[in-house]
Amino acid sequence: MIILHSFWLSLATYRVRIALNLKGVVFEERTHDLSLGRQRDAAFLAVNPAGAVPALEGATPEPLTQSSAIIEWLEETHPTPALLPADAAGRAKVRAMFLLTAADTHPLVVPRVRAQLKRRFGADDDAGTDWAAHWFREGLAAYEALLPEDATRCHAETLSIADIALASHLIGAARFGVSLRGFPRVARVGESLAAIPEFAAAHPDLQSDAPRT
Amino acid sequence: MIILHSFWLSLATYRVRIALNLKGVVFEERTHDLSLGRQRDAAFLAVNPAGAVPALEGATPEPLTQSSAIIEWLEETHPTPALLPADAAGRAKVRAMFLLTAADTHPLVVPRVRAQLKRRFGADDDAGTDWAAHWFREGLAAYEALLPEDATRCHAETLSIADIALASHLIGAARFGVSLRGFPRVARVGESLAAIPEFAAAHPDLQSDAPRT
Repeated sequence: MIILHSFWLSLATYRVRIALNLKGVVFEERTHDLSLGRQRDAAFLAVNPAGAVPALEGATPEPLTQSSAIIEWLEETHPTPALLPADAAGRAKVRAMFLLTAADTHPLVVPRVRAQLKRRFGADDDAGTDWAAHWFREGLAAYEALLPEDATRCHAETLSIADIALASHLIGAARFGVSLRGFPRVARVGESLAAIPEFAAAHPDLQSDAPRT
Repeated sequence: MIILHSFWLSLATYRVRIALNLKGVVFEERTHDLSLGRQRDAAFLAVNPAGAVPALEGATPEPLTQSSAIIEWLEETHPTPALLPADAAGRAKVRAMFLLTAADTHPLVVPRVRAQLKRRFGADDDAGTDWAAHWFREGLAAYEALLPEDATRCHAETLSIADIALASHLIGAARFGVSLRGFPRVARVGESLAAIPEFAAAHPDLQSDAPRT
């Protein structure tokens, strides 16, 4: 059995969950409440010494970590449907678009970083939210500059890892109150992606450990 | 002609420079002084709208960006010597190790982030250095937990993208005054990597735009 170690709020786990859904991989989730620091429990550190979700256990001798490494592994072992373009330049482009959020934005706003902002600089919740909003806005501008006009997908009108990344970026932007005004290309692609069943089912709010409202 | 857009201090550019050296790709460098904000010059924004180095121009219809996307492209188009293991699980592992610094550490300490720390929280140079040192130390601990005892390479005693990443992590750690005490496995691998000619020649201090001392 393949186990996805997760936390409902985790955008990186959301990216992996979409890819698993699209590839039709059957998996179970094991949730860890990062808001209570459960990622530092000994049992989970044995799975991922870095104490971070997502981790994918049971598919390989050692658990897989890091959303982009997990998704590249899925692409290699479950090639259909393809989430990377057929040409090397196209692959480089969608990989770079993936990293616009997975490297340039998301790592700046994860709980461990906001905890350090609070501890070192006295950043209260509002300042932390403002910080996060700033970086998501920067990322939106970077995506907007790269997207073709009238597109419904990030690259070549074909679903790719760039779309998975953009979907996670949009959830993060919404979470921190960032408006999509001024980013019409991003908004159009995002709306189209949200309608895809495998994306919709992966949404953080629908996960078993999400608060019931 | 392949052009690498670079800045001597850029650790992401250093990673790409090592890979280009190892693959034997002939390239020219075009330097942009990020300390003067030259990455926001119109001419460079036409190359990379995100205003970040590295960018690799001339090899593909559009310039390539993001160190890991560029290196994956190099691996696909210049397969020898291989910088990814032959097995999918091994590839996932070295990709995750690459991202330990390229996603989890380095984006937290780049100039644009330290500029925001200063502007928003009044973080002076010492506080900025302390912030950077903290994240490099966290990364060292994550690498130390993953490295085999007595290893001279990150994975399977074979050179890979994980080694390129670790070498860049070590330069960053040194730059911010982080000691390797307590990280003997990292120190051993790092010493071995520094002796490799393609790594040594790529060192930031040896680049044409580095200050002469």
